[in-house]
Amino acid sequence: MGAEGQLKATLKEISEPVKAEFDALERHFKDYLRTDVPVIDSIFQHLLDGGGKRFRPLLVLLVATCKKNASPEDINRLAVAVEFIHTATLLHDDVVDQSDVRRGNRVAHHIWGAEPSVLAGDYLYSRAFSILVEIGNLGILQAISTATTSMARGEVLQLLRSYSTATTVEEYVEVITGKTASLIAGSCRAAGYLANFDDDVLKALEHYGLNLGLSFQIVDDLLDYTAERGVFGKTAGKDFLEGKVTLPVILLLETLGSGSRRKVADIFLKETPDPDDFEKVREMMNQEGVFDKIREIAKQYSDTASAALAISPESDSRTSLEAMAQYVVYRRT
Amino acid sequence: MGAEGQLKATLKEISEPVKAEFDALERHFKDYLRTDVPVIDSIFQHLLDGGGKRFRPLLVLLVATCKKNASPEDINRLAVAVEFIHTATLLHDDVVDQSDVRRGNRVAHHIWGAEPSVLAGDYLYSRAFSILVEIGNLGILQAISTATTSMARGEVLQLLRSYSTATTVEEYVEVITGKTASLIAGSCRAAGYLANFDDDVLKALEHYGLNLGLSFQIVDDLLDYTAERGVFGKTAGKDFLEGKVTLPVILLLETLGSGSRRKVADIFLKETPDPDDFEKVREMMNQEGVFDKIREIAKQYSDTASAALAISPESDSRTSLEAMAQYVVYRRT
Repeated sequence: MGAEGQLKATLKEISEPVKAEFDALERHFKDYLRTDVPVIDSIFQHLLDGGGKRFRPLLVLLVATCKKNASPEDINRLAVAVEFIHTATLLHDDVVDQSDVRRGNRVAHHIWGAEPSVLAGDYLYSRAFSILVEIGNLGILQAISTATTSMARGEVLQLLRSYSTATTVEEYVEVITGKTASLIAGSCRAAGYLANFDDDVLKALEHYGLNLGLSFQIVDDLLDYTAERGVFGKTAGKDFLEGKVTLPVILLLETLGSGSRRKVADIFLKETPDPDDFEKVREMMNQEGVFDKIREIAKQYSDTASAALAISPESDSRTSLEAMAQYVVYRRT
Repeated sequence: MGAEGQLKATLKEISEPVKAEFDALERHFKDYLRTDVPVIDSIFQHLLDGGGKRFRPLLVLLVATCKKNASPEDINRLAVAVEFIHTATLLHDDVVDQSDVRRGNRVAHHIWGAEPSVLAGDYLYSRAFSILVEIGNLGILQAISTATTSMARGEVLQLLRSYSTATTVEEYVEVITGKTASLIAGSCRAAGYLANFDDDVLKALEHYGLNLGLSFQIVDDLLDYTAERGVFGKTAGKDFLEGKVTLPVILLLETLGSGSRRKVADIFLKETPDPDDFEKVREMMNQEGVFDKIREIAKQYSDTASAALAISPESDSRTSLEAMAQYVVYRRT
């Protein structure tokens, strides 16, 4: 891939250097989850079939293959563990939504309500740590447990700041550092241990992951306002309806005069916002150039991520990691 | 403590050999939770002030002091970590109840609904693993991560078997092994690593914890039917109302003829059971001698637990562990 190729690379092209390992992951997910209870297996099968980009495991594979001495089994373990942790977080994030929707009779609430999501998340999370312990590397355990603590902290912060239209860009970055970038940073650092990199490269890989993760989440939050219906994985407007104060809202409020700012804040704080409110806000963001500004901010984080890789040896995997940094900025889904 | 003293020992007497360390734990809980976000600290302070018996940390202290060579700091770390994991489980267990109670306006649901319990639990759980990683002993990490996986499995099984009046004693024991006994077994084994015990003693300590944990949970489930209002930590009848098929229900159904059995099962499956239903079932259990039978079963598990300790060296701590096995059978709260 040349510089131009990197900008336009698809996830498929990016995963090329680790194609066989990446394709085999779906099987490993299943193997590492298998229990002695068929009904638990079928619950998890359903979760795993839901798919996802497998973004974190792909990073693990690419980082760990930047040098050629990592144990393939340990790479799989780490790739599986970080995806399980990510899936657990998604399940726990869904809890409030689910408990809103699934009201009704008492028994059904037990079977399909909030609790199964919480417990399935706990199970995935516990399995992830068991698998990490099997690798037997304390550096990896430290990288991932630090990341998960930071994630939980970020999620709590995000919740505390729901509906707070006074949230600053700095506070926003603090939240997404925790809830998204920390696990990506920890995954890259942990994979670096598998490749047996020196401490300075480990730090660089963590720095890469941190900035890549910030860029990734900033674009995710952007897509929540710009995505066409049906293209983006989640419904556009979800953050808005849940009162999450993300970068598009913060930058819009910053650019507006105090009168308009008050009006937007009021819409945002309405008890029952409707799709028209969302469209109105989205149109204002577009007019104020908020979307372009955000893409530019994401690009800066991605460039910082790429630059951090210079210290690691050249390889196809490293080229893919650089391409990944650009991919997250320009992706549409 | 003589044999008679052991039977009647209070938790205070049992904790005597590790009194100073046990008293200092409340401070350690606080120190290990402290974050840079005051509002998170105050949430956790509230949780910790809720108290609890600190049963698992006390076991850690007693096992780890059966020999005199464990690092005091590592003992504290393990004691704190297992209590954090236990607290996280309680928080996640509460989720369904909370989401029932806390309905209402959209913002309040975000702040006081299911989500904070889930996230606070995740935070405690993550911190626990970080603290365990600080100890730097892979045996301990394996013991605890195996336990937490088993816990999550037990919780899922319990949920799947809600309202299933066909649940057998064996299936019940499988559930409580996971949800309660596994963490107690893992805590004892992990503390054994700190004391630098040989593998055969580690196994014996795990066996002690497993049987102690079963006895503990069996009595917990008994107290849910027998406790006087205000004495037991939780309201009597909670399991019944939640459709949890525990040992009192299973043994009652076993002893009844098919006609009465059908009637009890129908009460248990009612959409909205009332306190009278609970009193009716409780009275039948009393008449059929179910409560005495259960106390006897718990006693057998506790005796098995005590016997497992014979392999470890005599010490005040070991005597307390034996007394603990009896305490869990005869406790009223």
